[in-house]
Amino acid sequence: MTARQGFHAPYLLTMNTMNEIIADGTVIVGEDGRIADIGPRSDIEARWPDVPIRSLPDTLIMPGLVNTHAHSGLLRGTAEGLPVWEWLQQFIDPMHRVLRPHEAEVAARICYAEALLSGTTTIVDMWRYMEGSALAARDLGIRAVLVPYVAEHPAHNYFETLDTNEELIRNWHQGAGGRIHVWIGLEHMFYATPEAWTRAIAIAKAAGTGFHTHSNESRFDVEETLKRYGTRPVEALERFGLLDAPRTLLAHCVWLSDAEIAILARRGIGVAHNPVSNMKLASGAARVMDMRAAGIAVGLGTDGEKENNNLDMFDEMKTASLLAKFSALDAAALDAWSICRMATIEGARALGMSNDIGSIEIGKQADLIAVRTSTPRMTPLLGGSMGNLHHNLVHAVQGGDVVMTMVQGRVVVENGLLVNGILSDLIAEANAAVPPLFARRAQWLADNDTTASLGLV
Amino acid sequence: MTARQGFHAPYLLTMNTMNEIIADGTVIVGEDGRIADIGPRSDIEARWPDVPIRSLPDTLIMPGLVNTHAHSGLLRGTAEGLPVWEWLQQFIDPMHRVLRPHEAEVAARICYAEALLSGTTTIVDMWRYMEGSALAARDLGIRAVLVPYVAEHPAHNYFETLDTNEELIRNWHQGAGGRIHVWIGLEHMFYATPEAWTRAIAIAKAAGTGFHTHSNESRFDVEETLKRYGTRPVEALERFGLLDAPRTLLAHCVWLSDAEIAILARRGIGVAHNPVSNMKLASGAARVMDMRAAGIAVGLGTDGEKENNNLDMFDEMKTASLLAKFSALDAAALDAWSICRMATIEGARALGMSNDIGSIEIGKQADLIAVRTSTPRMTPLLGGSMGNLHHNLVHAVQGGDVVMTMVQGRVVVENGLLVNGILSDLIAEANAAVPPLFARRAQWLADNDTTASLGLV
Repeated sequence: MTARQGFHAPYLLTMNTMNEIIADGTVIVGEDGRIADIGPRSDIEARWPDVPIRSLPDTLIMPGLVNTHAHSGLLRGTAEGLPVWEWLQQFIDPMHRVLRPHEAEVAARICYAEALLSGTTTIVDMWRYMEGSALAARDLGIRAVLVPYVAEHPAHNYFETLDTNEELIRNWHQGAGGRIHVWIGLEHMFYATPEAWTRAIAIAKAAGTGFHTHSNESRFDVEETLKRYGTRPVEALERFGLLDAPRTLLAHCVWLSDAEIAILARRGIGVAHNPVSNMKLASGAARVMDMRAAGIAVGLGTDGEKENNNLDMFDEMKTASLLAKFSALDAAALDAWSICRMATIEGARALGMSNDIGSIEIGKQADLIAVRTSTPRMTPLLGGSMGNLHHNLVHAVQGGDVVMTMVQGRVVVENGLLVNGILSDLIAEANAAVPPLFARRAQWLADNDTTASLGLV
Repeated sequence: MTARQGFHAPYLLTMNTMNEIIADGTVIVGEDGRIADIGPRSDIEARWPDVPIRSLPDTLIMPGLVNTHAHSGLLRGTAEGLPVWEWLQQFIDPMHRVLRPHEAEVAARICYAEALLSGTTTIVDMWRYMEGSALAARDLGIRAVLVPYVAEHPAHNYFETLDTNEELIRNWHQGAGGRIHVWIGLEHMFYATPEAWTRAIAIAKAAGTGFHTHSNESRFDVEETLKRYGTRPVEALERFGLLDAPRTLLAHCVWLSDAEIAILARRGIGVAHNPVSNMKLASGAARVMDMRAAGIAVGLGTDGEKENNNLDMFDEMKTASLLAKFSALDAAALDAWSICRMATIEGARALGMSNDIGSIEIGKQADLIAVRTSTPRMTPLLGGSMGNLHHNLVHAVQGGDVVMTMVQGRVVVENGLLVNGILSDLIAEANAAVPPLFARRAQWLADNDTTASLGLV
């Protein structure tokens, strides 16, 4: 519990249904970590005369960003220049075979720190040994949807399992004051047997939780699914019951047919759009405009540090805009407000959490960020009918411009510094963890016939 | 003149022909503002025992970035969602009609500040009333190639002229200790008469200076040139003598035929690639790989604050990588070292300045930056055979990570702050300049039949 407090800024972007911006606005955060009131400063001061108001000059306050797809990791800049499936086999899967729990926790800590420092308040993390991830989220103060990288297949026996996923749900779902959610994860449909598909969804239903996997990321993914099952990936997921969890979020969804878009819309499936990763790995351009037109909740995700190579949602917002405009050759495609919504309330909707987060409205969690506006990147700064805040949030601002991050009413980044961790220690731990991890991977590769063992099942 | 001094960092990226990285490296900057020596710290200390060495822990030192195409301006985030030519006619040209010299100077100051703060040491600026730009470059300490927006056509009588361009050459070319270069500019071939084309190149030859214009930016540009002259733009430029200046730099070059690439290569023409602008305005994807394969010097440019919406070359580097990989659907396209070269030494070559800037080598100008590495974005930090600095400079680092910028041996950004200007004053001046500028533009639009006056000539 924290004391009731107000926060004032020259601009307050609510991201409510009207995309309302309150000039000279104040938000009151209650003792329960939720938003108690919001409005012009003078109105709020009249209504809450006894509540201390903290002013954040030269900033705008907006909802914290919702990163709908990420992977913690330690491979930044070391697995470059390959398309998705080759890259998985050459760099990523061998790392999973030798990863240790301590390394996984170190990775989660540095990645959650990066996310908070760049304005992300909720992160969907698909990762390994996620007891460590839960501790990292608990300690640093981020809101996290933890999704173990599960595989249940003889050829991929080096990931998490449904057993470890179930245990994580028992230990951590709704933990850390409700900030931690645990969903059922699956690396990919190909990485599990039909029996495991059935069990995965049964666990999600029993726990009343969500299901997250990758789908339709590359052409290869679609072609291989057609070859195996005679149907496209989303159609296969539906047929196999993998869209039957209480909540489903699919990452990527780059190569979708009209029929697959219709299925996603009809089934209320959320989508995590990862434009940087999709460009960098040469996966393709997702049909974001078509998905949105069909009513699908499309959030934004950074994907992992190895696919991006940062976890900065502002970077993702800009790239989402550029990719949509370029791939349609239409400069009006995916306007700035749409992208602001995707990074906040639509991301929340994709997670089934839009009643709780994603906008600054009374009753919601106080997950807020303050973005510095006294920068060349935000100059000129215009309100009113010529207002340009949203355009520059998408196209000019960078994660480093975030000065304050609050999750559930608690300040977790202050003046650009972590409140609940020492960044230099987290960096040092990551740098120390990497050489032995890489050495074990090299040893594993030397000891194994990789052409056989890394082949697709 | 400054005293001879050394600068030491854990990593020193030379961007020499071998892309050599010196671990624990020191660079000696001479009294003439040039690089006197470079090497491992111990060697340098032995060779220069009396020179004070300043250590920059937790950074890498690399050459300052060369922004080969930008426009100063004050329209950030206010001219959105239109393709190039409509956007020019609706927002940009009317601004030019009412712009005043003081406003132009204010724009140059905030834009050069933004550039220096994000690691750009050389900027090619096409802008207006450029006496003010020269003063801004002189004061803030950036190296600038000033290129007036010249038009010489009855329908476009609201830009700079060859007379004002010639005067700027007389007053400022080789000014500010050689930091300021003045080239001949032309908004676009369409914006000048044949007589003016001839005179423009004659002036460039007489002054021994360069020529810069926009070409092949959009499909419309190519189609309209074919309609007018029966030939493609680069072919037209060559036929009209517009490639005959001592040095020529063309911005964009998005839609090029093989024959046009051959002309650019044969004539030694430099190209400014602006991937963010080209995506945002839905112009297209330049054939960067093909141009580089033909030996053309391709630099990177941010274009203006209104096309981007920031002037951060690190952002441009990442987008160059993503666009190349996505448009070829090849994750190996345009590798990170190529992009580091484009942002530094290749940009310098595109300007004909590669003997002087673009790499850290003995005898060159000491135009250097120090980039903070103690960030999550640069973690893990690996040297040696697994070295990942270049990958993360391209894909992870942001302009805000620049802690020190040096031009010609003088430190102009220190600890992320401008040395020769007060940023808050520059921001305040820009914010004050915008409302009257916009009011005059609105008045001009109300007073004029824009459909006629803004139509293409």
